[in-house]
Amino acid sequence: MKLYTYFRSSAAYRVRIALNLKGLAYDAQAVHLLRNGGEQLGEAYRAVNPSMLLPALEDDGNVIGQSLAIIEYLEETRPETPLLPADPAGRARVRALALSIAADSHPLANLRVLKYLTGQVGVAEDVKLGWQQHWLRSGLATLEALLANDTRTGRYSHGDTPSLADCCLVPQVFNAQRFNVDTAPYPTVMRIHAACSELPAFQQAHPAQQPDAE
Amino acid sequence: MKLYTYFRSSAAYRVRIALNLKGLAYDAQAVHLLRNGGEQLGEAYRAVNPSMLLPALEDDGNVIGQSLAIIEYLEETRPETPLLPADPAGRARVRALALSIAADSHPLANLRVLKYLTGQVGVAEDVKLGWQQHWLRSGLATLEALLANDTRTGRYSHGDTPSLADCCLVPQVFNAQRFNVDTAPYPTVMRIHAACSELPAFQQAHPAQQPDAE
Repeated sequence: MKLYTYFRSSAAYRVRIALNLKGLAYDAQAVHLLRNGGEQLGEAYRAVNPSMLLPALEDDGNVIGQSLAIIEYLEETRPETPLLPADPAGRARVRALALSIAADSHPLANLRVLKYLTGQVGVAEDVKLGWQQHWLRSGLATLEALLANDTRTGRYSHGDTPSLADCCLVPQVFNAQRFNVDTAPYPTVMRIHAACSELPAFQQAHPAQQPDAE
Repeated sequence: MKLYTYFRSSAAYRVRIALNLKGLAYDAQAVHLLRNGGEQLGEAYRAVNPSMLLPALEDDGNVIGQSLAIIEYLEETRPETPLLPADPAGRARVRALALSIAADSHPLANLRVLKYLTGQVGVAEDVKLGWQQHWLRSGLATLEALLANDTRTGRYSHGDTPSLADCCLVPQVFNAQRFNVDTAPYPTVMRIHAACSELPAFQQAHPAQQPDAE
C-alpha cells in the first residue's frame, strides 16, 4: 500500500492512525502542500487523485481518495482490529462523530479556504486567524456536547477501544493547539486525546514523527 | 422512523432520497433554519441533536446525526435496495464521491458559514455570493473530474444503479442552480442529474415537494 501524505495534513494524519492501529505497513509518498505552488495541484498528483486533495491510498491497483472512505475501505478489507463497533447504532454514532469533524469542522479552516479568504476576499491575517479559531472552537464544542452527555463514551470516544472517531479527534485537537485555541472548555475531548496519545499507533502517526516533517 | 428535516437543507435532502430509494416510510418533523432565530439552535432540537445541525433520524430509540452516517445506518439495518456496491473498491469509490460533496464542498457554503462571513468578517452581499459560487463550482469541477474519467461511471455515478453518491450529487446541483452557477462545464454531473431526476424517489425528495416548502 502507498499513502500519499503530508505531515501536517489532518486528513492524512487520520489515515496514518488507522493504518497504525490495524498494524498495516505502507509506503509514505510525501506531497508538499506549500512547495512548488502546492504539489497537490500539479500534474503528477492530479493524475493520481483528480480531487487534488490529500490523502490518497493506492492498494491493489485502486486509488482511493477521502480519509473516511479510505478508513472504511481498510475496515472492509482488513477487518482485524476493527475501528467501528459491531452494532449498527454504535457504528452510526462513531461515523457521526467522525463526520462532525471531517465534514462540519475541519474543511472550513483548510488551506484552500484560508487562501481564498486572504486572496479573493482580501481579509487581514488577524481575521483569518479568527476564522480558523472560530471553526475549530465550534467543532470542538459540538464534539464535547456529543461525547460528554452519552453513556457510550468510554476511555475513548466510543467505549474502551480506539475507533474511527478517535482517528479524527486527535488530528483536530492538534490543529486547535497549533492555532492557539484554548482547549479547557472541552474536557471530555481532551481526556480522550490524552488517552489516545499514550498509544504508539497515535504517537507514530503524529506530524512531527513523519519523514517529511519540517 | 422520524426525520428532522428542512425542505431546503441539502443534507436532509440526501437522506430523503435514500429513504425513498429504499422505500422506507418516515415521519417528517420540520425544523425551520431561519424562523425564530433558527429552530435548529433552540432547546428543543438541541436536546435531540447537540450538534444543532440537520438532519437527524430517530429510529428504535436511537438518534443519529450526519446525513452520511444516517444513510450508512439505513444500509446496514435495511439492506434491501443497496445504496453501496458489493465490492470494497466500488464502495470506497462511492463513499469518496459522496464525501467530495458532503465534506469538501457543501459545508463551505452552509448557512452558518455565510452568516459568519457577512456578520463577523463583514463582507458585502456580492462577496458572499461569490464565495458560494466559488465553492459550488470547485466542488462540481472535482466531481466532474472524478466521474468523467472513470469507466465505473454509468447511467448514475457508479454503474447503472443509484447510490449514495447520487443522493449527494442531486442536492448539490440543486444548490448550484439555486445560486445561479453555470452548470455547462459539468456535463457528466448534469447527465447523471437528469437520469436521477426521472426517478420518483428523487422527485419526491425535492425541496419543492416537502410539506414545509415555502
